[in-house]
Amino acid sequence: MTIADRWLLPDGMDEVLPPQASRMEELRRALLDLFHLWGYDQVMPPPVEFLDSLLTGTGTDLDLQTFKLTDQLTGRMMGVTADVTPQVARIDAHSLKREGPVRLCYCTNVLRAKADKHQGGRSPVQVGVELFGSASLAADLEILRLALESLSASGAGEVHLALGHVGIYRNLVEVAELDAEAEYAISAALALKSPGQLEAEVSRAVSDPALAAMFRTLGELHGGPEVLDQAREAFAEAPQAVNDALDKLCELYQGVHREHPEVACYFDLAELRGYQYHTGMMFAAYVPGYGQALAKGGRYDDTGRAFGRARPATGFSMDLKLLATLASSEAASDSVWAPAEGDAEGLDEAVQALRRQGRRVIQGLPGQRAAGHGCSEQLVARDQRWVLEPLAT
Amino acid sequence: MTIADRWLLPDGMDEVLPPQASRMEELRRALLDLFHLWGYDQVMPPPVEFLDSLLTGTGTDLDLQTFKLTDQLTGRMMGVTADVTPQVARIDAHSLKREGPVRLCYCTNVLRAKADKHQGGRSPVQVGVELFGSASLAADLEILRLALESLSASGAGEVHLALGHVGIYRNLVEVAELDAEAEYAISAALALKSPGQLEAEVSRAVSDPALAAMFRTLGELHGGPEVLDQAREAFAEAPQAVNDALDKLCELYQGVHREHPEVACYFDLAELRGYQYHTGMMFAAYVPGYGQALAKGGRYDDTGRAFGRARPATGFSMDLKLLATLASSEAASDSVWAPAEGDAEGLDEAVQALRRQGRRVIQGLPGQRAAGHGCSEQLVARDQRWVLEPLAT
Repeated sequence: MTIADRWLLPDGMDEVLPPQASRMEELRRALLDLFHLWGYDQVMPPPVEFLDSLLTGTGTDLDLQTFKLTDQLTGRMMGVTADVTPQVARIDAHSLKREGPVRLCYCTNVLRAKADKHQGGRSPVQVGVELFGSASLAADLEILRLALESLSASGAGEVHLALGHVGIYRNLVEVAELDAEAEYAISAALALKSPGQLEAEVSRAVSDPALAAMFRTLGELHGGPEVLDQAREAFAEAPQAVNDALDKLCELYQGVHREHPEVACYFDLAELRGYQYHTGMMFAAYVPGYGQALAKGGRYDDTGRAFGRARPATGFSMDLKLLATLASSEAASDSVWAPAEGDAEGLDEAVQALRRQGRRVIQGLPGQRAAGHGCSEQLVARDQRWVLEPLAT
Repeated sequence: MTIADRWLLPDGMDEVLPPQASRMEELRRALLDLFHLWGYDQVMPPPVEFLDSLLTGTGTDLDLQTFKLTDQLTGRMMGVTADVTPQVARIDAHSLKREGPVRLCYCTNVLRAKADKHQGGRSPVQVGVELFGSASLAADLEILRLALESLSASGAGEVHLALGHVGIYRNLVEVAELDAEAEYAISAALALKSPGQLEAEVSRAVSDPALAAMFRTLGELHGGPEVLDQAREAFAEAPQAVNDALDKLCELYQGVHREHPEVACYFDLAELRGYQYHTGMMFAAYVPGYGQALAKGGRYDDTGRAFGRARPATGFSMDLKLLATLASSEAASDSVWAPAEGDAEGLDEAVQALRRQGRRVIQGLPGQRAAGHGCSEQLVARDQRWVLEPLAT
């Protein structure tokens, strides 16, 4: 093996060097502090769990993304966390067992077996919040607002918010009594934005002409807030549950728009990303120049059922590695250089006193020079005392 | 599979719940801030690397502790980080390639395939520093002092420091021209503190009577600072290199004792933990009540050679999970309760204004009551305005 081989990192398993690592640390703190102020308590899920716990009720996508390990102690299969949300749902359902609404947040490394073009590398740092125990619109709205605040705290300027609600499609499917195959085929045609394919699938599966028309219209309902009015009209005769979902979407939009009129809202009623997983509203927030969403979230009630307690749940998550690229790090160059030794007494004490004041002091080591360390001042011995003097750069 | 099975966590893969998670976060910040003030730049090594990079020059212990994964993209074997230090050495040698002393620090999850009785669980959070590019005593002393400062910042009261230097044993081995088998056998006897076994191994392997006596004496040289004087006497006729190592140990002790006279120092010249890995001084810091060291470190020159640049290196690391148990978390109960809604306008604005002032505001959700959230005050509508009032607990 050559030295060059040892340098290679696996694709998508990135290291973060100075000063970008400090920028990430700063942002981590800013976000966790923000979550704290909103009443969210931090948890640290284990980096590895038994596969059965990790993948319960999460669908095959997460399974394929999860690195598998054999536990030498028990012989059971374990998985490395690929998504923190199901772990936090387990913590809420089983470890905490609190009654009523519970707010939790986290920031932790996760690993993905394959790079997903929508999700960046294979080693994101997932940061997010989950709100359990409240099925209310207020809970969904809080999550949406906190996601926007988080992006703003991360330095995002212009934000585009894509809002949807799985209840519209899901309730149409239910009323039309579609089997799983037709449900999937129509959703796939909607995702492809292919009117021809949609027409074919709808004709085949939906016999009721009014319902068939609604499925067809769904494929056209994407755009700005005017889409909500168009949907009202198109679904006027639709079952109540479809209109309930539409009502919720309208209220969420109004709530977001009232607080964040600067955020451009986009609706795609045929957007069914995470359809198997989500149970209500879902959203993705975009920033110009980034091909992938910077924050993603939504409602996913009842995940906790597998752990003994079905609970309403809503939340969002982001990738700290990606977020940290929003604003550049401005390394403050106010460090102090201290020589390795000098002819006055008390150098160590002078250094420690400055550090206690919050100054960064870089202590020279034998043979090292002051240049190149970003120091603006240096400790110099004058009249048997150590004093600060400007350091020419 | 039963619900109970899904709750089980793999042995040693712990979750951290509130309020302990906040305590860990606080401590993480305090330590990284301390390292920053001492001039250390944060790095975030990848959580997974190719096995060849991770295990180069690190010995079999780390190999056995490393979880192995197959990279689906390349088919090559990867390992999950079990020890961050070799990764940081790679970053210094290859990624940064800076000349002269380089100070780096990190705080990151690691995984271990087996629980080690000396190291706690299988999912520690490793936090530490590495100083590359200086073979000086000043560098070793800085690492020792920073380790003690870190323990103090973590809330450790009484600290016991065990100091050693592999150069004493290693140079005796060299002069005695021992083969690898004898070198191992004598070190094992020393580790067992078994005079009988030591006598047998020394008699078998060392023909020179003076050298044999020195090997035997090594087994007795453990205790307080008086051990250093005893060693001087015992090794008066030993090769210069042995006495150089002893000199360094004495100087380190004096340096530590000058700054931290309250720290009890303990010496065991036969202590050879990490012998294959260390190249100079090594230390472990203990706190009463803890069966394992809370900070461990030492000099490990030339690890970077495998990555193209042999560099002097010294550093230490700690387990944040263990450290966080030193001081109990005191959850400040100064949160504010805000009702879900009220009959005055501007509730959202009042909540956001408080958060901007740094107050934690827990917003009630429909049906939720104020009790049980650790709030000392609540927002109440009085005369069409939102004001803070004490909340009876």
